Amino acid sequence: MTFRAPVSEYEFLLNTVIGFEQIAQTDRFSEASRELVTAILTEAGKLCDEVMAPLQRAGDVQPAALENGVVRTSPGFGKGFTAIAEGGWIGMSAAPEQGGMGLPMTLTAAVNEMMSGACLSLQLAPLMSQGQIEALEHHASDALKQMYLPKLISGEWTGTMNLTEPQAGSDVGALSSKAEANGDGSYAVTGQKIYISWGDNDFAENVCHLVLARLPDGVPGTKGISLFLVPKFLPNEDGTLGAANTLGVVSLEHKMGLHGSPTCVMQFDGAKGWLVGPEHGGMAAMFTMMNNARLGVGGQGVGVSEAAYQQALSYALERKQGKTPSGFIADHADVRRMLMEMKADTYAARAILLACAHATDMQTATGAADWKARAAFLTPIAKAFGTETGIRVADLGIQVHGGMGFIEESGAAQFLRDVRVTSIYEGTNGIQAMDLVARKMMDGGDMAHRIIDEIEAQAEGARATHPNMGEAVWQACESLRETTEWLVEQDDLQDRFAGAVPYLRAFARVLGGHYHLSAAIADKGGPREKLARFYIKRMLPEHSGLLTHVQEGAAGTMALTLEELAG
Amino acid sequence: MTFRAPVSEYEFLLNTVIGFEQIAQTDRFSEASRELVTAILTEAGKLCDEVMAPLQRAGDVQPAALENGVVRTSPGFGKGFTAIAEGGWIGMSAAPEQGGMGLPMTLTAAVNEMMSGACLSLQLAPLMSQGQIEALEHHASDALKQMYLPKLISGEWTGTMNLTEPQAGSDVGALSSKAEANGDGSYAVTGQKIYISWGDNDFAENVCHLVLARLPDGVPGTKGISLFLVPKFLPNEDGTLGAANTLGVVSLEHKMGLHGSPTCVMQFDGAKGWLVGPEHGGMAAMFTMMNNARLGVGGQGVGVSEAAYQQALSYALERKQGKTPSGFIADHADVRRMLMEMKADTYAARAILLACAHATDMQTATGAADWKARAAFLTPIAKAFGTETGIRVADLGIQVHGGMGFIEESGAAQFLRDVRVTSIYEGTNGIQAMDLVARKMMDGGDMAHRIIDEIEAQAEGARATHPNMGEAVWQACESLRETTEWLVEQDDLQDRFAGAVPYLRAFARVLGGHYHLSAAIADKGGPREKLARFYIKRMLPEHSGLLTHVQEGAAGTMALTLEELAG
Repeated sequence: MTFRAPVSEYEFLLNTVIGFEQIAQTDRFSEASRELVTAILTEAGKLCDEVMAPLQRAGDVQPAALENGVVRTSPGFGKGFTAIAEGGWIGMSAAPEQGGMGLPMTLTAAVNEMMSGACLSLQLAPLMSQGQIEALEHHASDALKQMYLPKLISGEWTGTMNLTEPQAGSDVGALSSKAEANGDGSYAVTGQKIYISWGDNDFAENVCHLVLARLPDGVPGTKGISLFLVPKFLPNEDGTLGAANTLGVVSLEHKMGLHGSPTCVMQFDGAKGWLVGPEHGGMAAMFTMMNNARLGVGGQGVGVSEAAYQQALSYALERKQGKTPSGFIADHADVRRMLMEMKADTYAARAILLACAHATDMQTATGAADWKARAAFLTPIAKAFGTETGIRVADLGIQVHGGMGFIEESGAAQFLRDVRVTSIYEGTNGIQAMDLVARKMMDGGDMAHRIIDEIEAQAEGARATHPNMGEAVWQACESLRETTEWLVEQDDLQDRFAGAVPYLRAFARVLGGHYHLSAAIADKGGPREKLARFYIKRMLPEHSGLLTHVQEGAAGTMALTLEELAG
Repeated sequence: MTFRAPVSEYEFLLNTVIGFEQIAQTDRFSEASRELVTAILTEAGKLCDEVMAPLQRAGDVQPAALENGVVRTSPGFGKGFTAIAEGGWIGMSAAPEQGGMGLPMTLTAAVNEMMSGACLSLQLAPLMSQGQIEALEHHASDALKQMYLPKLISGEWTGTMNLTEPQAGSDVGALSSKAEANGDGSYAVTGQKIYISWGDNDFAENVCHLVLARLPDGVPGTKGISLFLVPKFLPNEDGTLGAANTLGVVSLEHKMGLHGSPTCVMQFDGAKGWLVGPEHGGMAAMFTMMNNARLGVGGQGVGVSEAAYQQALSYALERKQGKTPSGFIADHADVRRMLMEMKADTYAARAILLACAHATDMQTATGAADWKARAAFLTPIAKAFGTETGIRVADLGIQVHGGMGFIEESGAAQFLRDVRVTSIYEGTNGIQAMDLVARKMMDGGDMAHRIIDEIEAQAEGARATHPNMGEAVWQACESLRETTEWLVEQDDLQDRFAGAVPYLRAFARVLGGHYHLSAAIADKGGPREKLARFYIKRMLPEHSGLLTHVQEGAAGTMALTLEELAG
């Protein structure tokens, strides 16, 4: 695969659309100058293009395999991971005291996104470590931090998350893994966990598992769950590795895609671990890192979207069929429609992603409740719309290829097979949408309305230079406002949940219109304005059907009995 | 996989919605009584449930393979094909003189659809034979008919279509395969063909290839193409098999799905063949069968849609997560939304499919130009919407499964991987949509408006019993009328093509509303009315955004230069 990290696109978005300078003006991130941003994106882009993208196919055709209880990773993945680690990319946003770069999450989001486009299955490994680093930074004891963080940040060790059990997926509170105090400050963790991404590998010295389990006095449900750090090898006090812990990989899943990422069934048999956060406080610790992990997965969707677009465009510029001005199929109106939809949606999803990361950084830098609420509100949208966009764009990419799209050698199909999981893991998109319309609207819709107000203000301001586009965005946003008002009035959450996914999609469509309008204003007469017009005139109108769906509530959705559903 | 052929659903559609009795009232199909229809659907359903569905996984995990130049098919596929052949299902609609059953295409469409749901990759084999049978019936000499049809109908021999070449896909006219007269009435055919579904197998005595090639005096483009019948083994005059022909399978493609169906690269080296139809009349012969082949592929989409729905529902009725009335995830509002969308769209796509088949039968039985035009108009909609629905429903099926959807053992992913090709082969869905807005509107939109008039008349008539639904369908149809009027006024075909796919989708959405309304009227207060309400209130509104897109024309779609697309 030829992949070119979209460095200048990030620069435009950060500098012109998202307002990155606001982050750089805070004390916390004062070093993140425009020059540094460019240098970082350029350097990461080089790694993506030259080291990671060439591994994409190998990860698919030579999947990770379990050999004698140990995971053997795809050819080149070990070297690839080392290159990522040595570039310092794992700890981009981690604390400098432990070897991190202390950079804004917005930059990490951009770099993670481009790495996802280059090779999703490999990128998932450092993403898992990042999640663990963040959890430890916020919740672990100083002793654990000092022991684990430098190794995780340097990539000598890797991290995983162990939440899911066969009977406890979206319903984490149903888990049955147990932990008991050993009396020496450590705990014995027992249970089976499934869907553990990168549960083992053959390139890091140690693999550190964050495991949710219940202490003997833990109440049923999520409030009785604690979080434990359980390493594959027990470290000695000097950080060297001692005995193997009593845990192991039982099997690897056979998946639709993402074959380069070993998805493990893990068994813990009284494995030695250490508490992270307070007893029974496991879910709180998980929630801390969940926001950023969800942002990371949203970025995976956007990254694959970018890569699938690049690949489809490249094919459309070399394949000749029928009579067109250039001779290439890219000049057929329907092929062009697909390419334009792909490009316009990739931009929209990326803008939402970076806006969410921006709010996270402003929250970190200022501690302001408004930024916190904004980041929390945007996170499910960034996750669900980013991943949906990845899936939709990869699907369109196959279609652009025609027959070749169905042939694996083209690589177009792999994008769809790989990215398909992103709308499922780290909370399905349905869970994201339910989070948006329930928990994220416990403020009575305050944050939603604040964002809506901002979009309408921008759209009104744009009427002088972009009357049609400004009007279209304003009208769409006004429809969104009405439906939002309807939504927060629904006391029966079922009425919100039945339309949660269409609502989230409509909100993302309107946000996409907002950011496209920003691009149009910044690039009057230029290609960004043309792309914005395509989006606003042709794709934004989708909001109308979606919002109609939302306002129907739950009754009609639940109207059939379970027997009638089968009839 | 557990699959239950939806026999009663077909009965309802045929008897209550589509008006099958109109077919049975013609002389040609007077034997197709209601009892016969039920008997046929029941018998075919049994074959699907008991013989074909159990082969679905084997076709995926033990793909067809090329061994010493011969295709070895997946375990059980030979027996499965024999069972299909012995049931007489290959020649359901073929002429009784040659061993066929002479039944309406509407029944064949129903049976093909249920077989696709049971095992798509195997079903493709008889579908290919059916296409060849129809081409030979209409265009071959009596001698060829007598030699080949009985064997193809009995399943002793199988048929394939050889159109595509590496440089000639959607642009068939660019093909370079050649044919020369041998002087004895036969021809020598030379060239390479790609994407040949079931190009070889190990269960039929002979494989008969219909090959498009150009005679020495054939002009460039489609008008210089002739059609040849080229068998793997040359038959003696008594029908026994003689020498092997000079043709062979070069390789099999590695595909995203449909692994049980060998997709061959075929090489013809002066292979002996016989002309089908007149010299340079190959495309006309191809077009005859293309309508029905497209109908067949649309049915594949609907069949997989049905199977994916059944599987997702079954999972949602056994998986417990979170608190719901039944305890099962099927009672979560968002899961229910997905199931309802799947069920409602499967119904809509199936109704369109059967309405198209119905028009084809009425054309055959009456020869009336109106039926011919109607069948021609509905065919691209049935193909594109049927296959799109298959893809969308299979994708939702994965989502309903959560994490299990990404794991191959569940079977949910295979539906998507298999059905993904249907929007590409037999003319991509983009080609279908372009056909709809150009060739199928060369009547100035007459047939489109006739169908629109019928839908509005029904919707008006429904206002007494179903005021809201009737009004919604009428309004949607009126929007479709306005856009149709706009469309036929566009003399520059680019302006039609840029919105062709959204237009086809919107037309299908409105047709779906029409057929759902029929079901609501027939089942007042019942589950079909509830499903119709869900579709009409929540899914039909999608038409609005789509039609807005259409009316934007081509300029904005083509606005970026090729360089700007890459920027």
